[in-house]
Amino acid sequence: MERVGAIVPAAGHGRRMGGRDKLFLPLGGRPLLAWCIETLESCDLVGEVVVALNPAGLKRAALLSEARGWCKTRACLGGARRQDSVAAALLLLGSVDWVLVHDGDRPFLTEQLIRDGIDAARDTGAAVAAVPSKDTVKVVDAAGLVVQTLERDALRAVQTPQVFRADILLRAYAVTGESATDDATLVERLGCQVRLYDGAYENLKVTTPDDLVVARAIARRWKGAG
Amino acid sequence: MERVGAIVPAAGHGRRMGGRDKLFLPLGGRPLLAWCIETLESCDLVGEVVVALNPAGLKRAALLSEARGWCKTRACLGGARRQDSVAAALLLLGSVDWVLVHDGDRPFLTEQLIRDGIDAARDTGAAVAAVPSKDTVKVVDAAGLVVQTLERDALRAVQTPQVFRADILLRAYAVTGESATDDATLVERLGCQVRLYDGAYENLKVTTPDDLVVARAIARRWKGAG
Repeated sequence: MERVGAIVPAAGHGRRMGGRDKLFLPLGGRPLLAWCIETLESCDLVGEVVVALNPAGLKRAALLSEARGWCKTRACLGGARRQDSVAAALLLLGSVDWVLVHDGDRPFLTEQLIRDGIDAARDTGAAVAAVPSKDTVKVVDAAGLVVQTLERDALRAVQTPQVFRADILLRAYAVTGESATDDATLVERLGCQVRLYDGAYENLKVTTPDDLVVARAIARRWKGAG
Repeated sequence: MERVGAIVPAAGHGRRMGGRDKLFLPLGGRPLLAWCIETLESCDLVGEVVVALNPAGLKRAALLSEARGWCKTRACLGGARRQDSVAAALLLLGSVDWVLVHDGDRPFLTEQLIRDGIDAARDTGAAVAAVPSKDTVKVVDAAGLVVQTLERDALRAVQTPQVFRADILLRAYAVTGESATDDATLVERLGCQVRLYDGAYENLKVTTPDDLVVARAIARRWKGAG
């Protein structure tokens, strides 16, 4: 049986949410962070979960964990950047074959996305959920002029889960000093191939108050369907 | 006084909205399409508006125009692709110096976005509203492997308004046969420089039912502020 450990970076400060810590905002009857954690908790494929939080979040998550009976999930202090949080969580994770990283502010994780990610990662050792870009995307120069319009059909907006063979992710974190907006980018810099697999538009990242409006609509649908 | 004509492509069929014609869905007390048309109607900078519709839309828009007292706006039959609709509308537009193209399914157009677009277009003859990309975007090959992770800081998600010197846009439409997801791309293919200017995240395109949920939240804010 392969061992899968999950890391949930959740140490951000929610600046675009008006200063409130978005991870603990109510969403369909439970805090936003509880959604993805509880999908990981209930998924048999996942052996353990480490969530990286800021100091205030650590306290709130401890209470939440006890109240909701989380049993696979431990917490650690995250860092200033997303990748600092992932690095801190990696240190706490036990010996695993695969590491699945999932943003704490993407509540609508499903068992399907977890399973598909692990399956997709078998090929090259790294897989990332992604959806076709809805936008026309252009590259701009410092003067504000268009340098290039990208071929939309080939563009994917990256989500999480991002699943890696543990040794690859450890190596990526051992060598890197540079910033990256996702873990796969660090792995790509090692020269490793990364496979994209089908994410879901519903698997949104809750960043702004408008995102929260959408999330609440989706949460109502999920409860209606559940 | 410079003459500015506006074109509103609105002939799409709303396939991602469950088959309903999204342009006539209610949004804060008026049909979605009425929002941008009425901002153009009330903006002194804009002399005339041509909206391109599908056959069913033409009938509904005629009733709407009469009911709401639109006086600068005429309609034409649009085409299968967005650019076919813009080409049809261009034929109907009078002699103007500038053409402003705005998607009919972006309700939250403001006079500021119109004014800024015209100002920005003075430099090179073409300007497009855009916002920084929120997503990490990767380029994928046919096998589903990542070819490139794009430098997010240089990426802009393109919106409308897109404003063009009339002769440039006419030339772009005269020579092009290829498809493009926005008008600026056609202009870029002529070798013309396109300037990006600051759009707004609120200036969203309503494509899916979840987009409509966000649009209704924004419409409530606008009415609350108005």
